[in-house]
Amino acid sequence: MPIDANIHIPQETARRLSLYLRSLKRLIQNKTKVASSEEITRFLNVSSVQFRKDLSYFGEFGRRGIGYDVETLRQEIGKILGTNVVRKIALIGVGKLGFALLGYPGFLELNLQISAAFDNDPEKIGKVLAGIKIEDIRRMKELIINRGIKIAVLSVPADEAQGISEKLAGSGIKAILNFAPVNLSLPGNIYVSNVDMASELESLVYKLKRGRL
Amino acid sequence: MPIDANIHIPQETARRLSLYLRSLKRLIQNKTKVASSEEITRFLNVSSVQFRKDLSYFGEFGRRGIGYDVETLRQEIGKILGTNVVRKIALIGVGKLGFALLGYPGFLELNLQISAAFDNDPEKIGKVLAGIKIEDIRRMKELIINRGIKIAVLSVPADEAQGISEKLAGSGIKAILNFAPVNLSLPGNIYVSNVDMASELESLVYKLKRGRL
Repeated sequence: MPIDANIHIPQETARRLSLYLRSLKRLIQNKTKVASSEEITRFLNVSSVQFRKDLSYFGEFGRRGIGYDVETLRQEIGKILGTNVVRKIALIGVGKLGFALLGYPGFLELNLQISAAFDNDPEKIGKVLAGIKIEDIRRMKELIINRGIKIAVLSVPADEAQGISEKLAGSGIKAILNFAPVNLSLPGNIYVSNVDMASELESLVYKLKRGRL
Repeated sequence: MPIDANIHIPQETARRLSLYLRSLKRLIQNKTKVASSEEITRFLNVSSVQFRKDLSYFGEFGRRGIGYDVETLRQEIGKILGTNVVRKIALIGVGKLGFALLGYPGFLELNLQISAAFDNDPEKIGKVLAGIKIEDIRRMKELIINRGIKIAVLSVPADEAQGISEKLAGSGIKAILNFAPVNLSLPGNIYVSNVDMASELESLVYKLKRGRL
């Protein structure tokens, strides 16, 4: 079954594909070889109908009445999402959150390899944490270029984020996962994804207030 | 200037209000007493026009040609967002991410007080981390009810999240900040906010792939 892994898919579909991928990995851990659409979507809060519809973008996968070959489907979705290739990432800021991210298993699951970590704290520079040597942030540009890193994870204080992200843009970084609670203003060819816990929390508090709790 | 803090506001406005709040806190730290809309929005990537429009929902705040009283505006936005009241939260799951969250300063900034933390690891139960005693997850319902906690932060493995969230719903929890990479299926009166780093990362990798990097 030939698939076209280069077809453009909507963002919501891409998000669901990544949920399917995680479900397939869990099935593989449990030594499952073949699974139905119901089994694959069981813990996802996505219907099996939606699942089949999403896959239909890419051609025929499962076999009616038999199910899906779990390992094949995992590989195919990996190709579609681009997680079948190892990519290097740089972690900027090794505070509490950055330290937690150094040990975050989700990176490896997506073939993302932390290839450099930076901080400006003399107490941290030179230390090895979770197997990664912390480098002086003044060497950020040099090391990112030398190591060919294209993805940065930004976990620095809010007031430093814009300036550092501009330096990242000037170092050839193409995508930033931003944990700082600011909207970064960067050239349009830099993709920024925001993980703003504080805003989520505030929004949650606001919902609670509205609910008169 | 009387304001109506109970008016309903769109979610996007609420998000921007929380950005303004953070900016105001920074100005207060820097001993600024009065600031213009341009100064308040400087690091936010939100225009001063948008800022004035957002505030106009609630009445008149600043004075033309003079600016905004920073402390007053902070208090008023806090009332609107509901962050002027101390609320208790429970942290469920003290793994790497949960441990980072125990020390996350953003909770205190929003008047959210971690009033209980739970894990099922005998090595962790009874220990005090970041000033919080880790309790046996089997006591979760009892302690959440006794302490009147209405907000839970869920940082447990994906396959445990649904079951635990149902127990939380049964313990009177009204809002969940969910870090587990699953869509929780819960009664409609429970508000769930997802912080799905893995999906953000996958989406980012997908964008990179589309950009042929």
